[in-house]
Amino acid sequence: MPEARNTSPEIGDMDRALERIVFFSDAVMAIAITLLTIDLRVPEMTREVAALHLTSELSAMMPQFVSFGISFMLIGIYWMAHLRMFRYIKRYDPGLIVLNLLFLSCIALLPFSSYLVGSYNFLTAPNVLYAGNAAAVGLTISAVWWYASHKHRLIDQRLSPTLIHGVTLSWLAPPMSFLLSIPIAFIDPTSTSVVWWILPAGTTLLARLIARRW
Amino acid sequence: MPEARNTSPEIGDMDRALERIVFFSDAVMAIAITLLTIDLRVPEMTREVAALHLTSELSAMMPQFVSFGISFMLIGIYWMAHLRMFRYIKRYDPGLIVLNLLFLSCIALLPFSSYLVGSYNFLTAPNVLYAGNAAAVGLTISAVWWYASHKHRLIDQRLSPTLIHGVTLSWLAPPMSFLLSIPIAFIDPTSTSVVWWILPAGTTLLARLIARRW
Amino acid sequence: MPEARNTSPEIGDMDRALERIVFFSDAVMAIAITLLTIDLRVPEMTREVAALHLTSELSAMMPQFVSFGISFMLIGIYWMAHLRMFRYIKRYDPGLIVLNLLFLSCIALLPFSSYLVGSYNFLTAPNVLYAGNAAAVGLTISAVWWYASHKHRLIDQRLSPTLIHGVTLSWLAPPMSFLLSIPIAFIDPTSTSVVWWILPAGTTLLARLIARRW
Amino acid sequence: MPEARNTSPEIGDMDRALERIVFFSDAVMAIAITLLTIDLRVPEMTREVAALHLTSELSAMMPQFVSFGISFMLIGIYWMAHLRMFRYIKRYDPGLIVLNLLFLSCIALLPFSSYLVGSYNFLTAPNVLYAGNAAAVGLTISAVWWYASHKHRLIDQRLSPTLIHGVTLSWLAPPMSFLLSIPIAFIDPTSTSVVWWILPAGTTLLARLIARRW
Repeated sequence: MPEARNTSPEIGDMDRALERIVFFSDAVMAIAITLLTIDLRVPEMTREVAALHLTSELSAMMPQFVSFGISFMLIGIYWMAHLRMFRYIKRYDPGLIVLNLLFLSCIALLPFSSYLVGSYNFLTAPNVLYAGNAAAVGLTISAVWWYASHKHRLIDQRLSPTLIHGVTLSWLAPPMSFLLSIPIAFIDPTSTSVVWWILPAGTTLLARLIARRW
Repeated sequence: MPEARNTSPEIGDMDRALERIVFFSDAVMAIAITLLTIDLRVPEMTREVAALHLTSELSAMMPQFVSFGISFMLIGIYWMAHLRMFRYIKRYDPGLIVLNLLFLSCIALLPFSSYLVGSYNFLTAPNVLYAGNAAAVGLTISAVWWYASHKHRLIDQRLSPTLIHGVTLSWLAPPMSFLLSIPIAFIDPTSTSVVWWILPAGTTLLARLIARRW
Repeated sequence: MPEARNTSPEIGDMDRALERIVFFSDAVMAIAITLLTIDLRVPEMTREVAALHLTSELSAMMPQFVSFGISFMLIGIYWMAHLRMFRYIKRYDPGLIVLNLLFLSCIALLPFSSYLVGSYNFLTAPNVLYAGNAAAVGLTISAVWWYASHKHRLIDQRLSPTLIHGVTLSWLAPPMSFLLSIPIAFIDPTSTSVVWWILPAGTTLLARLIARRW
Repeated sequence: MPEARNTSPEIGDMDRALERIVFFSDAVMAIAITLLTIDLRVPEMTREVAALHLTSELSAMMPQFVSFGISFMLIGIYWMAHLRMFRYIKRYDPGLIVLNLLFLSCIALLPFSSYLVGSYNFLTAPNVLYAGNAAAVGLTISAVWWYASHKHRLIDQRLSPTLIHGVTLSWLAPPMSFLLSIPIAFIDPTSTSVVWWILPAGTTLLARLIARRW
C-alpha cells in the first residue's frame, strides 16, 4: 500500500512535532516557575497601618521566600534534566507524550504546593504534600526517560546500555530523597525543608558525576 | 502585474507564519493548562486555626483536584489533537486563523469553568457550563480540521477523502459525549464528572483507532 | 577597519534575533489573551448559599463575558496584524524593539481594562479607559509599521510606496474608531461596547480590503 | 576513546539546546512582564459605591501605573540586553545555565516587588526591596556575561578583549545606579522612583554608546 505511506508526514514533520513537544514542555515549566511568585502578597493595609506593620509583614513572609527559592531551584534542575534528556530523544510516540504530560501536571501543581508549605511550614500536611509533589516530579521524568530509552525505543541508537541504566538510577535519586524526607515532616515539620536543600543537592551532584561520563 | 507578485512574501515566510500560528496556539494551551491550578488555594488562617483545620480544608479541596485532573487531561488530549492535525496543514488563510482563535478562546475559558465545577460540583449549572465549554473546545477544533481539509483547502494534497472524513467523525465524538452528559447534570450533578472520565476516554480510544489507520 | 566587521554577528544571527523579537511578542500576546479570564470568578459561597444564588451570580457576570469576547477578538485581530506585518520586516534596530515593547505594554494592560469595563460597564470612566487602551494598542502597532516601512528602513525593498501608505492608513482606522467611541461613554456608558463590536469590525473589513491588494 | 565521542550529541543538538535556553529565558521574561499587571485591581464595589468612588479609586492607583511603567521598561531593557548578549554566545555549559536561572529568578520576583512599591511607595522598605531586586537583575545578567566571555569561554572567538571589558562595565552601570538610589529611600521614599527613571536611562545611554562600538 504505497499510497498510505505517501500520506504519512515526512521526516521533517517528525522533527517539527518533536520540537512542539519540547516547546510545550518549556512553556509549561517557564509558566510554573514564574507563577511561584504569584501568591507572594502582603495584606492590603491603610497608609497608617502599613507605616507601622509593613516591615514585620515582610519578615513574616520569610518562609515564603525560602519556599520560592527551593521550588525555583527544583524546577530549574528538572528543566535542565529535561533539556539534557531531549538531546538524546530522536522520535516520539503517544506513550512519550502522555508520560511527558504527566510530568508537566506535577510541575503545574508545584506553585500550589510551594505556596502551601511556605504559608504553613510548621505543620506536617503541607510538608508531606510538597515532598510528595516534588517526588512525583522526579518519578514521572524518570518514567519518561525509562520509556524512551527502554530497548532504544525513541533515543539515539548509539547510547550504551550501561550509560542508560546509570542515568535512570541517577534520576531516581532526587525523588527518593524527597520521599525519605516525609518521616521528618511527622517528627519536626519545620526541619523538613532543611533536608530538601541538602539531599537533592547531594543527589544531583551524584547524578552529575554519572552524567559526566555520559 | 509581475511587480505585485514580487511584493508577496516567499514560501519561507509562509512556513514561518504557519509556525507562529502553531506557536501561539501552543503558548495559549500551555498557559491555560498551567493556570488550572491558579485558584487552588486554602483560605488564610492563623497558626492556631491552621493547626486544627488545615488537613480538613485540604480534604475539602478534593473535588478541585479531580476537576484539575479532568481538565489537564482534556487540554492535554486536545493539544495532542492539535499537534497531529497541524502536521498535515501546509498553508494558512484568515479563515483558519479565525477558527483557531475561536478554539483557543474556548481553551482559555477552561480554567474558569474547571474551577467553578470544582467548587460547586453538587450543582447543575457548573456541570452544564463545564460540559458546554468542553464540548465547544471539541467542536471548534473539529471546525478547524473541517475547514482546512475541505476540498484539500490547506492540507497535504495526498490525504485520501475517506481518511479525512473518518478523522472529522472521530474528532466529533468527544464533544458529542460531553453534550450527552448534560442531561445527567440535571438528574444527579455530582455524577456528571464520572461520565467525563469514561466517555471521552472511550471516544478518544475510538478516535485513536481511526487515526492509526491514518 | 575589517576586524571590526569580523566581530559583528553573521546574517544568521540577525535572523535569529528577529525571531526572538517575534517570539517574545507572541508570548506576551498569548499570555495577555489567556489572562483575560483570570479575574472571572464567582464569590466564595457556602453550599446552601451557592444552591440558591450561583445561577444568578453567573448571569450577573454576563457583561464580564461580553468584555472577554471583545478583548479576545481585539488581541486576536492585532496578533493577526502583527503576524502579517512581520512577514515583511526583514531587519531590526533598537527603535523597532522599543516601539514594539510600547505596543506590548498596551497589550499587557488590556486584561486590567477589560476586567474593569466588564465589572462597571454602566460607568463612564471604565469605558473611556478601555477605549483609550484599545486605541493605544492600535496606535502603537501603527507606529511600529510606520517606523519599519518609512524609507524602507527595515522592510522588504520591493514593497511599493502606495501600498505602504494604504496599509498605514488601514491600521489607523481601528484606533480612530475607538477614540470616536469615547464621547458615547459620556452620554450612555452601557452603549459604548456596542460601538466596539461594530466599528472595529467595519474598519477591519476596510483594512482587509486594502491589505488584499497588498 | 572514540566510542565515547560517538555517544555525545552532534553540533546541531548543541545549537538546539542553546535555543531552548534562550527560549526558556524569553518565556520567563514575557510572563513576568505581563504579570506586572496582574495585581492591578480595584476593590469590588456595589453599583452605588462604584458610581461615587470608582474614579477616585482609579486615581489612587496612579503610583501602581508608574510602578508598572518602570518595571516594564526595566524588563524590556534587560530583555534587549539578553537578546544582544546571546547573539555572541555560541556554546553553553551547566555554569551558564545556573547563572541564567539566577537571573531569571530575579526577573520572576519583579512583579511582586513592583506591586509592593506601587502600593506603598511612601515607605522605605518597599523602595529598598525594589531597588535591591532591580540591582540583582542587573548584577546576575552581568555575571552571565562575565562567565560566558571570560577567556572566550562560550562566546565568539573573534570578539576583542577591550570590547568585552567595555560591555561588562556598561552592564554594571544600571545595577550600580539602583544600589545608589537606596540611601534616598531612607531620606525621602517617594522620590526614590524619580531616580529610577533618570539614572538607568542615563546609564543605558552610556551602555548604548559603548555597545555601538561593539
